[in-house]
Formats: sequence, structure tokens, C-alpha cells
Amino acid sequence: MTNAAHGDDILGRARVADNAELNSYYEDLAKLDTGALWTIANSIEPWEPTPVSDPVLWRNSDLREQVLRAINLVRPEDAGRRVVYLRNPKRKDVSACCGWLFSGIQVMKPGERAGAHKHAATALRFIMEGAGAYTIVDGHKIGLGARDFVITPNGTWHEHGIAEDGETSMWQDGLDIPLTNALEANFYAVHPNDYQTTNLPVNDSPLTYGAPGLLPLMDKWDKPYSPLFQYRWDPTYEALLNYAKVTDGSPYDGVIMRYTNPHTGGEPMLTMGATMQLLRPSEHTKAHRHTGNIIYQVAKGEGYSVINGKRIDWKEKDIFCVPPWMWHEHCNTATGDDACLFSFNDLPTMHKLGFYAEQALEENDGHQIVEK
Amino acid sequence: MTNAAHGDDILGRARVADNAELNSYYEDLAKLDTGALWTIANSIEPWEPTPVSDPVLWRNSDLREQVLRAINLVRPEDAGRRVVYLRNPKRKDVSACCGWLFSGIQVMKPGERAGAHKHAATALRFIMEGAGAYTIVDGHKIGLGARDFVITPNGTWHEHGIAEDGETSMWQDGLDIPLTNALEANFYAVHPNDYQTTNLPVNDSPLTYGAPGLLPLMDKWDKPYSPLFQYRWDPTYEALLNYAKVTDGSPYDGVIMRYTNPHTGGEPMLTMGATMQLLRPSEHTKAHRHTGNIIYQVAKGEGYSVINGKRIDWKEKDIFCVPPWMWHEHCNTATGDDACLFSFNDLPTMHKLGFYAEQALEENDGHQIVEK
Amino acid sequence: MTNAAHGDDILGRARVADNAELNSYYEDLAKLDTGALWTIANSIEPWEPTPVSDPVLWRNSDLREQVLRAINLVRPEDAGRRVVYLRNPKRKDVSACCGWLFSGIQVMKPGERAGAHKHAATALRFIMEGAGAYTIVDGHKIGLGARDFVITPNGTWHEHGIAEDGETSMWQDGLDIPLTNALEANFYAVHPNDYQTTNLPVNDSPLTYGAPGLLPLMDKWDKPYSPLFQYRWDPTYEALLNYAKVTDGSPYDGVIMRYTNPHTGGEPMLTMGATMQLLRPSEHTKAHRHTGNIIYQVAKGEGYSVINGKRIDWKEKDIFCVPPWMWHEHCNTATGDDACLFSFNDLPTMHKLGFYAEQALEENDGHQIVEK
Amino acid sequence: MTNAAHGDDILGRARVADNAELNSYYEDLAKLDTGALWTIANSIEPWEPTPVSDPVLWRNSDLREQVLRAINLVRPEDAGRRVVYLRNPKRKDVSACCGWLFSGIQVMKPGERAGAHKHAATALRFIMEGAGAYTIVDGHKIGLGARDFVITPNGTWHEHGIAEDGETSMWQDGLDIPLTNALEANFYAVHPNDYQTTNLPVNDSPLTYGAPGLLPLMDKWDKPYSPLFQYRWDPTYEALLNYAKVTDGSPYDGVIMRYTNPHTGGEPMLTMGATMQLLRPSEHTKAHRHTGNIIYQVAKGEGYSVINGKRIDWKEKDIFCVPPWMWHEHCNTATGDDACLFSFNDLPTMHKLGFYAEQALEENDGHQIVEK
Repeated sequence: MTNAAHGDDILGRARVADNAELNSYYEDLAKLDTGALWTIANSIEPWEPTPVSDPVLWRNSDLREQVLRAINLVRPEDAGRRVVYLRNPKRKDVSACCGWLFSGIQVMKPGERAGAHKHAATALRFIMEGAGAYTIVDGHKIGLGARDFVITPNGTWHEHGIAEDGETSMWQDGLDIPLTNALEANFYAVHPNDYQTTNLPVNDSPLTYGAPGLLPLMDKWDKPYSPLFQYRWDPTYEALLNYAKVTDGSPYDGVIMRYTNPHTGGEPMLTMGATMQLLRPSEHTKAHRHTGNIIYQVAKGEGYSVINGKRIDWKEKDIFCVPPWMWHEHCNTATGDDACLFSFNDLPTMHKLGFYAEQALEENDGHQIVEK
Repeated sequence: MTNAAHGDDILGRARVADNAELNSYYEDLAKLDTGALWTIANSIEPWEPTPVSDPVLWRNSDLREQVLRAINLVRPEDAGRRVVYLRNPKRKDVSACCGWLFSGIQVMKPGERAGAHKHAATALRFIMEGAGAYTIVDGHKIGLGARDFVITPNGTWHEHGIAEDGETSMWQDGLDIPLTNALEANFYAVHPNDYQTTNLPVNDSPLTYGAPGLLPLMDKWDKPYSPLFQYRWDPTYEALLNYAKVTDGSPYDGVIMRYTNPHTGGEPMLTMGATMQLLRPSEHTKAHRHTGNIIYQVAKGEGYSVINGKRIDWKEKDIFCVPPWMWHEHCNTATGDDACLFSFNDLPTMHKLGFYAEQALEENDGHQIVEK
Repeated sequence: MTNAAHGDDILGRARVADNAELNSYYEDLAKLDTGALWTIANSIEPWEPTPVSDPVLWRNSDLREQVLRAINLVRPEDAGRRVVYLRNPKRKDVSACCGWLFSGIQVMKPGERAGAHKHAATALRFIMEGAGAYTIVDGHKIGLGARDFVITPNGTWHEHGIAEDGETSMWQDGLDIPLTNALEANFYAVHPNDYQTTNLPVNDSPLTYGAPGLLPLMDKWDKPYSPLFQYRWDPTYEALLNYAKVTDGSPYDGVIMRYTNPHTGGEPMLTMGATMQLLRPSEHTKAHRHTGNIIYQVAKGEGYSVINGKRIDWKEKDIFCVPPWMWHEHCNTATGDDACLFSFNDLPTMHKLGFYAEQALEENDGHQIVEK
Repeated sequence: MTNAAHGDDILGRARVADNAELNSYYEDLAKLDTGALWTIANSIEPWEPTPVSDPVLWRNSDLREQVLRAINLVRPEDAGRRVVYLRNPKRKDVSACCGWLFSGIQVMKPGERAGAHKHAATALRFIMEGAGAYTIVDGHKIGLGARDFVITPNGTWHEHGIAEDGETSMWQDGLDIPLTNALEANFYAVHPNDYQTTNLPVNDSPLTYGAPGLLPLMDKWDKPYSPLFQYRWDPTYEALLNYAKVTDGSPYDGVIMRYTNPHTGGEPMLTMGATMQLLRPSEHTKAHRHTGNIIYQVAKGEGYSVINGKRIDWKEKDIFCVPPWMWHEHCNTATGDDACLFSFNDLPTMHKLGFYAEQALEENDGHQIVEK
């Protein structure tokens, strides 16, 4: 819990050595469900966060085959959801991909549908492949295309399916289930009819709210999350290309935009945010670190990231995570094409609670020394 | 100041008859720069607003010729701006088009430019015709196309011009100058260099902020108005067509969207808002009335509006106004094509001050009796 | 409309001389309800505001007698309200005290009550003298003491009265009636029963919301104005004395606090704000000027203010106004006692619309040259 | 993770039985740092939260003696802080009093002072006894009296001490250290000079911001927490007595008010809130349950609470906690005097993240069956 720059044997830190009298005192305290703060103070008040999760790469070349295999092993109606989840070696106890974020790969085949439920946890999806997939969120049915970003805010009824004439489809799920459970706030309900019936026109959410700088005049939206449930790939990629024409981009992330709630300009959901970023050909960003967890999926191209000195090579549909307070930088290794990274995070949680902190790497022109 | 339903001779209204003693009292009060409230109470506390402005139609077929004539009569550098302004017969004293809103038609020819200035008043433009026109707002240069909506928020340096290889261009200006003057808050400054110099890339504002559901991650925007200075016609029209697929529309306005500040979802500027609405073929809306002024320009198609019983027939590029608390309804007379109305208003002012009120016409299935 | 520093004969201002051809053009424009902007531009776009209202002092020694005289001249039920209003010589056309603000002195005698009504205009009161007076705002009855500040937000039912065993009472009313009328937004209604009936406990508003740094946990307040309808003198004066212990105060206003909506920390009502300020013995503030109107009542002590070079001597219960963009500074002439000024203003309107501007006087160590 | 009303063997829950093929599949998934969601889904998506912490009572009669004993065992400069912390038997791993909240009793004797530090965690104090104690928060020195509530927002420099002529003083600390650590966001720094030097007047914060319905006009406060660092007991108790005159109170909590940030009306700090509640003589509230943790200290009087069927008898200065989603109700057993409970909570965290849920007990007229 200390780092090179700070010892704990200084004024302002707990520096009480054990002795017999104190040990006797500690025993008495324990009997009263109490303890002496100075015996744990340096541990619970660290100089800075020590990352708990590992940085992990999940290769699509490994995962895809295993995910498809599940199709013949379980049915959605038995599994609830047919999902292979990503289990961080250091977060097995909370079934998390990174920190307090859950992630998994869901797969469905044509004609299948998974019943409607709702939970206090917030969910999002990033579509990886397929055709004819749809989701229904609180009665709003939305067709899903590759690289679309889709939200399922906390407390909304939701279900998924694939049209009979569709194709086997796969997407990454992201949820704050571990956080919701840690805060002892998760609730779950199965839809009374198992499936939602809706008279709303298909795609009403993106057709109503998916326009630039415009909102319906009569809008009565009063929910604490975005009324735009789907952010399609084509306009998103076009937005990055447009923005790239007029910006140098972030030193740490290249040309990066965040998905927003068009009603507020803020995050689309209460606990999680998401971004899409474009790395220009050969672009190599500088390193920074910050609190909060990020889980990436490569939307386009190939390259690598360096996370706390460890190089992770990635290509399309690979997934990797960056734990809190770990240095990270990104590199597009293609010289003739851009690379795009989708990512989601728990930064809205960090910001709302005043827990966001950020630091740029000063040494070595902002680049980490890569471990051999 | 009374209406059919309410007389003033009831409890709760001032009902004091003059007499000699009172008149003497009133004379004494006048000497002290005072008066008796009950002598004016019914007048200054009306049952409901009595519209001051006239509803007026300005036909493009009349206006265009006169506006073009100005090209040979004055130079921009002498006129400040070469603008023919729309003067409501009842608001000549404040040079307003309607209520406290100013509007005019500006024209410039290729190679001309009008110098940079700023003012406390807020401005907007709706482009009518031409090519190669541009505006520069606080250093952000933006190319202007027909039916684009462009903002010039209060206090920003701005100037306009036409490229040498452009075409004579015309646009409608809308400003809150009369309101700003009424509130004794107008300030004016000429740019020290007459023209802005800027290193910002052309069109950086729409290229950065003109995407649906996305904003730059690193954005530092902290102004009380929209960072998106231009709302282009093509995506706006597409947005209306998309929205039309999934909405019945407003009973009073058809398929109507408002231009927003993508950072907040609110109005693009502090005092004025703007909308674009689409009337389906043969659509005839119902009548309502509300506080606040609206000035329309026909962006597409032809039809008519009925304003407090008076029918106004309009077609493309015609301009008309609806004063506060006047009943109004719209009709697209084309059976095979939609009609679009651009409009701007002072409704943000009314909402912020708690002055917005609205009423639907109940009689005659919501339609006014048109005066012969 | 110009000032010494700026002529209008410079690039960026309208500088078009009349000639026959232009005059003919102007005539043609007039026929179309239009005009040439450059003929009015310099007038409607002034370099800075030119104050319209006069600074005026209304002495209590003059007013009180005339106000009391009204008691025997009109009854509240005939007058609606028995009010002598303050009429700025330059704002007679809109019955305003200053700018777009109305003010008057209301008087009632024991046992009288004035019926309930409501209006879109916003009202406030500052109690001058008496005992047993009360107001009822949307069913909340509040007892009124000298130097209390009381609000009647827009759209609330309200009525006033004096208990049978009370004393003749007098208070200053402040309303934004002229603004509401100018914006064509005033509505008026008489209570269907003439008087409100209420089961709410007396003084529930101050007893619930009048505590420092505390609010009811269960509160459901959702109105756009303060739930605290009364700000009592004793805690207000105590607050100023406390604050005076730890602040140098404002250079322009001494120890000054604003009345707030405890739910938001913002202004108590939508269009008008109010402050109470304390000038220490012999304190003489520096001059500044700003947009927006202020109407003062001397709550305590004596002194003078200098408004655009004109000295106005005041003592307790005197009322005076400072029009927009006029220099003003205050002086407590007592060497052994503090002086307190209550004031209300339309600054919330100015701030919301982006119209607030302020300037400190640089010359002469911040003090005006007083006219002889 | 299930309750009586819901089994897990229904459509919408994971219902996949193990078999050899699946087990083989699970082994393959594990090699890729993945797992099958359906093997854990019912566990991580419970029907409702299962409380983790125990409800615990810490009696002042037990604690006080042990806390005082520490005075002779450790010095503040060695302990950092001389605090006996309250350790929930179920939360020993995170050193929490309840859920993710830390609490402890701090004691200092006359002339002692504990050095300045800061941390990302947020802190608050409720004073139990003593005289002459002070805290300094970001340079603002504040004198502490019994039953005052004091805040130390995240990231502020703070230190405490007792005047030489003061008395041994004791207070309860509340911090979100466990939450901050769980979110891997804690940072700690020792003040470079060990102690703050300040020229600010003593008690400037309460003297400036501790008035009802008033704020300094010139205020530049821009922090995300309250500028009022101290909420004194006397006006707090007076506020409860006033409010009690006009309210029936909450069915679950009696007459209850929350401490607020006077700048916003919201919570004083980002992650934690606090309330003071008054139970009338013999008042017995109804039971409800909600997400979020509450830690109570009895400010006045005696009585008991029932927490998930367990009766806890309390009197002044006793501390107890209510874990999330546990039923709780309170009873003042005195027939002639009121009882007051101070409490702090993590409800702001729950609300911001959309995790707040609440339920009233319907059965038995809202009262729990108390365990024998």
C-alpha cells in the first residue's frame, strides 16, 4: 500500500509499534466489535490505489469458437441468456471482467428469443456479428447491426431475439452487476408474460432521437437515461472521420467521442459510459492513468496497447480491459488504415462520487517501457 | 383589456368611481410621483394578453426584388449590414417584426464581406439562396448552404461574406434586438481589426458537434449556448422524415423538431429557439394559442395558416409571423408533397421567466372560422 | 445613442447618406412593411444602454401621510388593493417605478381583508409597519412583521388582511407587472370563493423551510420558486451581523446577502431577486454600474446614495430606485450605527437572458463627482 | 439468493443442469478466463438484495471507557488519528461499520493536535462531548460543540485539535473509506507543513453560510460540496421543534430533516448524507426498508429500534447501524420528552447511481414481529 516515493514511517501516518499493553487493549476492543484505527490506517488509507484486477486480453480467435459451441449445449429459455462471460483472474469472486464491471459474449441463432426480464443493474451491448437480431427495451424494438452500440438502462424490461430469416448473431454484453451487488442494490424480475407485447413502431427510438442537434418539440422524456437506445455504427464512424478533420485528438486516445444522452449531453446511463475512438494510421498515443475501469472491444483494425508495461496485441473483435490507475497507451500498427476501439467504462460512477483522478506519464516522452 | 367572459365590475377588480375628493387626492399623489393603483389596476392586470403586433405575411415574390435592388444602392462597408428589415405595422416604434423580435433579409454578392462586430443581442440566420456564403463566429468559419440554420450567440464576434467564386446570397436574419433594447441591455462593439483572423479549420463546429448522440470526449465547452453553430438542411430534413415514420406528430404543428444545444439538450441560445416542422400532404393541424412570438419562413412547399381567423397563403421563402396569444393552425395544400416551415421564437425567454401559457381551441373540432 | 469614446462615422457602423434614389427606395420598402436596416441600425444597436428611467427618491415623510389618507377614501373590496403606486416620471406609460418593475405602498386597517386573486406577474412585499397583518399564498397563511420580506410567486392565489386586534399596517409591494405586460404574458383571475380556505397550519412555510442548512427529508416541493415564502427580519439581521464579522464585504455594497430559495440556492422567484445589505458606520462604498433595475427601501439608519452623479439622502422607510447602467454608490452617514438597505431587482431576468453586464468606476478612486 | 415468493426454477431464470458434456465445456471456458453465465446467473442476479452486514449496537457505556483508555496508550502524532473504530462482524475484511461505511470514535485531550492530511475519502463528524475542540478544513477553522455536525469533504486538507484550556473531547467519525477503496479510488497525502496555517477568521464558514434562506451576494463557491462545514446543534434542534409544529412527520422516521448544501439544496457531500430526526414522546414509527446503509447516533433521549425483527434498546450517545434492505422502525420510550437520532448514510451514492429502492411494511399495521 506504499509506493517508492512515500514511506509510512513519517509524521501523519500511523506509526504505533505493538507491545503487550496495546495487544491487551486490542483484545478488549475486539470484544466490543471494535478495533484501533492505527492498526489498519495505513492499509485502508493508501497513498494511491493499488489495482486489483489484471489487465487481460480475450482474443476473438479463441472466444468465438467457444461461444458458438454453446448454441448446441444450452437453449436461451433454459440459460436465461446464452452468454460466455469474461472472468478476470483476480475478480473471480465477483464474476467481474474488470473491477466491478461484468462482460460476456452472447450468441443466438435465427428464430431464437430470450425472455423479458429487468434488473436494477444497467446493461449495454456492442454488436459483433450477425443479421436479423433485435432487442426490445421497455417496448421499443430495435434492429441490431454490426458495431452498433445499444443500451438497456437500469430497470427497463428487455429481451432479445433473432428473426427467423436472420443469421446467428453475437454481441458483447456489458453490465454493472458486480457494482450493483457490491452496493447490495440488485433486484430482478421476470416479465409476467415472458415476452413484451408492443404497439410502438420498430426503431422508434433511433428514428426519433438519432438526429444531430435536433429533438422532438413535444418530447415528454423524463427518465434519468438516454431516450436514444441505439447508436448506429455508420453515423458514428462518419462522426469520427469528420471530427478527425478538425482535431488533433487526445494525446492519450486519438480521435475520441463519447456516446451521449441527447436530452442532456451527459452520459447515456447512470453508472456506465461508452466511447468510440479512432487511431490514425501509425498513431501511437501517450500514456496516462486514471481511476475507473475500461473494457475495450476492437471495432476495426489492428494494433496494440501497453498496460502498466505489458504489451497486448489486438485485432478486430478482440476484447481487453484496463484496470484502475494502470498506465495505458494505444498504437495503431497499420500504416494505411485507421483503427477503432469501442470501450465502455464506469467513469460516470467515478465522476458522480468525486472519485475521478487522472495522471499523465511524464517520463520517456509519455511512453512506457514495455516489459520483455 | 376585458373579454366577453369577464367583466370588470366584479369583486376582485378595481371598481372605484371618480369623485371630487378622489380627484383632489389623485392630484396630490401626482405631485409626489405617485398614483392610485385602482385607477389603472384593471388596465395593467388584464384578464389575458391582448396581442400588440399584427400577423403579417411578407411574400418572397415581393421582397426578393427589393432586396436585390439594395445591392446597387449601398455597400456592406457603409451599411454595416445590407439588410431589408421586416417592420410590423404595430411595432414600428421598436423596429420589430413581431413582439420583441427583429427580422430582416440580408443580401451579399460574390467577393463582398461585412466587417466583424459583436452585440449583446442574439442573432440567427436561415439561408434562403446562393452559394459560397460564409459566416465567422468567434473565429469559427462556416460555409452556408440553402435552408441551413445558423446561430450567432450573444456577445460573439461575427462577420459574413461571399467567396469570389460564389453566388449572390440571401438569408433571413432573426435577432432579439428589440428585447435587448427594451431591457436596456444592448452593447455594441466593432472588431478592432474589422475582420477576424482565425487558424481554426473551416467548419470545425459542425464537424465536431454535428453528430447524432456523440460529443468529443475532451470537450471543454463552457459557454451558455450551443457549440454547434450550424444545423444543416440535409440531416434536418432527413430527421423529420425519420421521425415522421414513427410519430403522429403534434396536433398543432405536425412533425416538429426543435434545434438543440447538443451539450444540454436545451435551446441553442439563451433567448431564442427555433424549430423545423413538416406537414404531411394535405395535413391540416388544429389551432392553439400561446404566449411568445413566432416568425416563420416557408422552407419547402405551399399551403396556408389561419391566424386569429385570418387566412395567410404561403409558399416557399415567404415569411409570416404569429403574435402572442393568437390562435393559429397550419395547412399543407399539396396532396402529393410535404411542406416544411422553419420558425424561430422567443419561447426560451417565456419559459425561463415563467411566462409560457398555452391553450387549445376546443370549438369546431379545433379549427377556426376563417374571416371572409 | 453614442458616447464620447465612439463616433458612428467609423467602419462597422451604418454610414449611408440619404439621396433621392435611396429615398425612393425607402418609400417602396415602406409599402411592403419593410425598411432599410442601415437607416436605423445605429439607433437600435447603441454602443451601450441609455437609461430610460429617472433615479427617484420617495420620502416616507411625504408618502406615509398620503397612503394613510387612502384608508378613508377607498375600501379594499372596491379598490382590489389599496395601493399608492410609485410612478417614475419617465415610465408613466407603463406605470412603472423603474424600468419594468412596479412598486407601491399598500395599507390596510384592522379587520380588513382584500380578496384572493392570482396573476402571471410575480410579487413580493417588504413590511414597513403595523401588527397583525397576514398574507395567504396558495393556502399558506403567514403572519407579517416589520422588515420581513415575503414572496408571492407567479400564479399563486394570494390575499392579505389584518386581524381585528391588529394595527393599521403598511408594506411596499414589488411586482414585475410592466415586464409581464411588455412580454404580453399577463393573466388574471379572481378566486372563485373570493377568499381562500385552508387547513394548513399558520406559518407552515417559515416553520418548515426557515432553518439554516436543513430541509425536510420527505419534501416533495416541485415548484420553480422558493417554498420559503417569508424571510423574517430578526434572523436576516443576525445573518448580516454574523457575516460582517468575517467579510470585508462588497466594495460596492458593503455586507450584502441575497434571499435564496433553500431548495436550490438560487433566486426565490423566477424574474425578481432581493437582497439585504448592511453598511457599517461611516462606510462609503465605491461606484459601479450594471444592467437591471434596483428598487431600494431603507430598512434601518440613514445616509445617502449617489446615482449618476446625483446625491439622494435617505433615511428609514425611504424608497429610491437605480435605473440600469447608472453609476451608484452608497454611504452610511451615521458614525455609530449601521444602516441597512433592502432592495429588489430584476437581475434574475437579466442573468437568465444573458443580459447582465457590470462595470466598476475606475476614476477618482471609484467615487463619482457629485452634481452641485 | 432467492426468497419465499420466487423460486429459481421458472422461465427467465437459469435452469441448466450439469452434465458431462457441459462440464467439459466449462473446463475449456475456464482456460480462456471465461465461464458460462448460466452457472452463476441466479447467484449474481438475485431477486432482491441479501444484507451482508449485521445490525449492531455499540453502547456508549461500553465504548467510552475504552476510547478514553487510548489517551494514555497512543499519541495522535503516532496514531495519525486516535480512533477506536466500529467493526461490523460481517465486514471485518473491509474494516467497515456497515456496508461500505467506516465509523469510529476519536478522542483528544487539551493541547493535543493531530496533523493535517487529505484523502479522496469523504469524512464527517458528530460531536459527542468536550469543549475547546476545533477542526480546520482547507484553512477554515471551526469550533466544535456537542451534537454539532461537521463535514470534511473529499480532497480537503483537515486537522483537529483541542485548545490548551479545553476539555477532553470525543466525536464520532464517519467516512466512506471502504467504498473509496472498493472503487480503487483512495489517495492520501500528508500536509507538507504537517499543520495548516490560515489567515481566515475563525468560524467564517458557519458565520457566512449558516443563515436561513440567505447567501452572500458575491459568493464564488464552485466546489461540489457544501460551503457550510458546520451545522450547529442549537439551530438544528430549534428547526426540528419548529417543523414539528406543522408536520405529522414521516411515518417511518417522525420529524426528520436532512442537512443540506445551502448552495444547491442537495446533499452536503458527494457520497454521504446525514439527517437529524425527532421522535415525539411515545412515538413509535412504522417499518420500511430501503437500499443504502445508515449509521445512527442517539443525540438525545432513549428508546429502541427494531431491525429485521431484532430489538435494539438505545440511549444517548449509543451508536447502531441499519444495513441495506433490512426492515427498521423506531420508538421513543419516554412519555414526556422527545428523542433525537442523528444518522449518516450513503444514500446520495445510491440515488446518483439509480440504486435507491424502498418498501413499506404492509403487514401488522406496519410493525415488525420482534424476535424473542
